[in-house]
Amino acid sequence: MTTDRMRVQYRVTGAGRAIAARAAALAVEQSIEMPVAAVRNARVRDEVVGRVEGILDEGGDVHRVTISLAVETTGGEAGQLLNMLFGNSSLHPDLRLVDFDLPDTAAAAFGGPRFGIGGWRAALGIGRRPLTCSALKPQGCEAAELAALAGQLASAGIDLIKDDHGLADQASAPFARRVAAVQRAVDDANRATGRGCLYAPALNGGSRRIQEQLGVLRDEGVGAVLVAPMIAGLGTLQELASEGRPILAHPALAGHGAIAAPLLLGKLFRLAGADAVIYPHSGGRFGFSADLCRSIADAARGPWCGLAPTLPVPAGGMHPDRVEELVAGYGPDLMLLIGGALLEADDVRRAARAFVTRVAALETDR
Amino acid sequence: MTTDRMRVQYRVTGAGRAIAARAAALAVEQSIEMPVAAVRNARVRDEVVGRVEGILDEGGDVHRVTISLAVETTGGEAGQLLNMLFGNSSLHPDLRLVDFDLPDTAAAAFGGPRFGIGGWRAALGIGRRPLTCSALKPQGCEAAELAALAGQLASAGIDLIKDDHGLADQASAPFARRVAAVQRAVDDANRATGRGCLYAPALNGGSRRIQEQLGVLRDEGVGAVLVAPMIAGLGTLQELASEGRPILAHPALAGHGAIAAPLLLGKLFRLAGADAVIYPHSGGRFGFSADLCRSIADAARGPWCGLAPTLPVPAGGMHPDRVEELVAGYGPDLMLLIGGALLEADDVRRAARAFVTRVAALETDR
Repeated sequence: MTTDRMRVQYRVTGAGRAIAARAAALAVEQSIEMPVAAVRNARVRDEVVGRVEGILDEGGDVHRVTISLAVETTGGEAGQLLNMLFGNSSLHPDLRLVDFDLPDTAAAAFGGPRFGIGGWRAALGIGRRPLTCSALKPQGCEAAELAALAGQLASAGIDLIKDDHGLADQASAPFARRVAAVQRAVDDANRATGRGCLYAPALNGGSRRIQEQLGVLRDEGVGAVLVAPMIAGLGTLQELASEGRPILAHPALAGHGAIAAPLLLGKLFRLAGADAVIYPHSGGRFGFSADLCRSIADAARGPWCGLAPTLPVPAGGMHPDRVEELVAGYGPDLMLLIGGALLEADDVRRAARAFVTRVAALETDR
Repeated sequence: MTTDRMRVQYRVTGAGRAIAARAAALAVEQSIEMPVAAVRNARVRDEVVGRVEGILDEGGDVHRVTISLAVETTGGEAGQLLNMLFGNSSLHPDLRLVDFDLPDTAAAAFGGPRFGIGGWRAALGIGRRPLTCSALKPQGCEAAELAALAGQLASAGIDLIKDDHGLADQASAPFARRVAAVQRAVDDANRATGRGCLYAPALNGGSRRIQEQLGVLRDEGVGAVLVAPMIAGLGTLQELASEGRPILAHPALAGHGAIAAPLLLGKLFRLAGADAVIYPHSGGRFGFSADLCRSIADAARGPWCGLAPTLPVPAGGMHPDRVEELVAGYGPDLMLLIGGALLEADDVRRAARAFVTRVAALETDR
């Protein structure tokens, strides 16, 4: 049995002079969750109990506490990893989960992105330019309306068409009917354009529904998938990674103030297999700062544990006018997701084509 | 198609005089998520777009905003419900999700607890007294050790034995082997005592693993189940409710500061089908106040939408010495979960029997 350990960093507020005891309690809470003296199994005491590895006084009664946990406690399962990192401790208001690291071999066992940035390019047959993406909205439309919109976007040359994350299995456009109709529209457009636009439907539900939805994806020849890991479970994301389709991860419910966004959206989503990660970009409808967005992108695609890079997808109210600014900031390894700003145009196809042309122009510049 | 609406309440901080615009943006973000003017479908504009139903100035630049959303947007799926209530808005630091209500018919469609408090009593064959529960710990032990512990607890008369939420599918005690061994130990004890102790293994993983684990539960004749809905997904909890076993919900990762605990652990877990809900009780290892715990219990078991009541399980460092205090505060519709305080005794079986006797004495008092 491995004795590999992962190192987890927390920000602890208000412990004062009791910080050593607070850190020790944290290490127990996030591992065996019982009095250490009552552990009868020597191996558990020696290898499984969490250990305090460091306490750094950051001033203002804030401490950075590093504990180590045995990798074996995760069972190699991403949901259980999250449980080990912050399950019970999420209920402690004095804690914030800020970072974690693990041995490369352990990271490889979780899987990471199977496609990564290069895999998206290969799947879409495109070179070194930013990828374009748009969304099917609004919820409440019938499947035929959404399919017609998908046809417009695909024929305009958009690379990836995703379901709005608000599309689920509603009566207005039930999952199976919607996915079949949209995929057909995308296939038709691809035959006309000669391109390889992919469609990423939003999965949702518990384990049974998700298995049924995966069956629909197989039947309809769907080439990508969207999932919100904090709603469907990080374990579901991890399993999707072995289904042979690039995965776009959505940040719904991920605004967990007590988990640092670069750790959650960057490292954890990446470790569990996200090939691309959507996050709210600065200057849109959400309040993330430019620095925070940069940190998320760095965690998603920078060198880490030998894992393939996850493609950053800054979104949440982006506009074609910002294409050059975004690419100047992020470089070409980027997916540009523009939804509402295309849909509100009088001629959606024309607006989408202008967006595609604007992005294509950036390839020749490099 | 129904036009039923659910009412959702948020606490908005710092909007100042822009509160009307902030509330309107919130209603759009949590529904169609695109400019309303760009919605071409009249039914979507009339029925699906979120509506601001009220804005209450609470002073100090805090407002209570009530919006209504179409129930149809949830598709009757609990994970998607959470997505509609707070998916994108969780990323807005000025918001807190504080309450929600929906029509009784819509609540019935989600399902709610299938067993409820009366169902636990019937399944266990016990009268009007608090239920007793203990936990199998620590993680890292082998299946045989955990099974031996389960045998001690069951033979002492504990009603429900749950996996520690840190038990998953680890190499030290793989799920299938552990569940088989523990269930056998509990069955043996039940034959000896004539009682009907139930075992609740912790499910974990994505949709495929959970389906496999449900197969193990069926094969081994396991009578209850434990799940952490914020890790496995609220949709997984909802599906488990139709599997014919009472469900114990665990609060791991539920310390989402931006969602009120009574709403999340009480209403949402109940609506999705939790028959009992564990929460950290005041005076234990966690900082929840007595008032907050009372509000969680009220939300879990009080009259709401005609749903069966969910059994409160105040936990997180409870001790047998607090039995009378807990029952005085909550009454007999309560599950008393005591883990570490039994496990640290020199003779676990004897400590568990004393706990059981102490609780049984309370039945004759009524």
